[in-house]
Amino acid sequence: MTKNGKISDAVIRRLPKYYRYLGDLLKNGINRVSSNELSKLTGFTASQIRQDLNNFGGFGQQGYGYDAKNLRDEIGKIMGINNNYQVIIVGAGNIGQAVANYAGFYEEGFEVKALFDKNPKLMGLKIRDLEIKDIDDLPEYLREVHVDIGVICTPKEVSQNVANILISNGIRAIWNFAPTDIKVSENIAIENVHMNESLYTLAYYYKNKKEIN
Amino acid sequence: MTKNGKISDAVIRRLPKYYRYLGDLLKNGINRVSSNELSKLTGFTASQIRQDLNNFGGFGQQGYGYDAKNLRDEIGKIMGINNNYQVIIVGAGNIGQAVANYAGFYEEGFEVKALFDKNPKLMGLKIRDLEIKDIDDLPEYLREVHVDIGVICTPKEVSQNVANILISNGIRAIWNFAPTDIKVSENIAIENVHMNESLYTLAYYYKNKKEIN
Repeated sequence: MTKNGKISDAVIRRLPKYYRYLGDLLKNGINRVSSNELSKLTGFTASQIRQDLNNFGGFGQQGYGYDAKNLRDEIGKIMGINNNYQVIIVGAGNIGQAVANYAGFYEEGFEVKALFDKNPKLMGLKIRDLEIKDIDDLPEYLREVHVDIGVICTPKEVSQNVANILISNGIRAIWNFAPTDIKVSENIAIENVHMNESLYTLAYYYKNKKEIN
Repeated sequence: MTKNGKISDAVIRRLPKYYRYLGDLLKNGINRVSSNELSKLTGFTASQIRQDLNNFGGFGQQGYGYDAKNLRDEIGKIMGINNNYQVIIVGAGNIGQAVANYAGFYEEGFEVKALFDKNPKLMGLKIRDLEIKDIDDLPEYLREVHVDIGVICTPKEVSQNVANILISNGIRAIWNFAPTDIKVSENIAIENVHMNESLYTLAYYYKNKKEIN
């Protein structure tokens, strides 16, 4: 059912939240949860939650609710979490280093294999036991090592070029932190983290709530 | 018109993109732009763009298009960009330091005034000439200094508590990087940057495109 590609973007984007909240429940020793309880946690309606999970065949039992561990495992499988993805980061500045250092990703099976930069001052510097490599060596590296996900943390002026190099050397998933929209063909997965857009949105709501109150 | 609070979230979230693309056009010496040209850049339809901008009274002229500088300035005003927001960061780990170091924010009028952490090893360390302060001093700091935006870059276990401290000391806008949903009352502006949810979503599309192709 996940292969028909008909699951809406909105559903896909709610799945990580279910995954996260179910993890929190399990950590607190709670193994059984109703759609109503999930509703209180996530802020989505109970019927929305049941509908979302029905997309993937359900997993709930009438009168019992959901088995939290089972549901979390299934969502993890659907999302492809814990598949041991090999990750490289291009751009080893503040954001690139922060991504490399973020322990949570390693726990979920995303393994950073290398960082690349063009700044000679960063060459040889180590982040989490990973030596920063010269970006000129990127194509050769990609011909030798299997990489699933390329993370782009470069200035926006070069980010499209970096994406092109990654894709022409076989990478099929790009996580972009550069504050621009990278253009890729249909068969490439891309996700943007546009921090500045998030900050501007916050500024808007801050300003407008101030005016309202 | 921006005061009635009726502009939809979806419109608000497109505004930063218009702002960014208009800035790129101006940098390239392009001062006049049609909704069709904006459509090609942003990927939104021309009618969507015209409708969005009509929410704020328009700014376009029939047969001429939009004056890029004027339109960008107006959107900036609507968003509240360049209002010289005073920002503090709680949690001076990788993400907190990356946010503090991100030059783009300073250019747009968001000024980081201080970082706070509870790790004694970080005390006194300087990020961009800002000394990392003890989180125990946060309430006193907030009583003395006006702060618009509190950025939360702590572990998720303490993020709600940090938010409560910020809010009870007068902060009305929170930018949250902790991988959890912080609960705030209606009058507080909050924006989340959930990096792990973005990465899981990427993993999903990567996995499913692989299956489709």
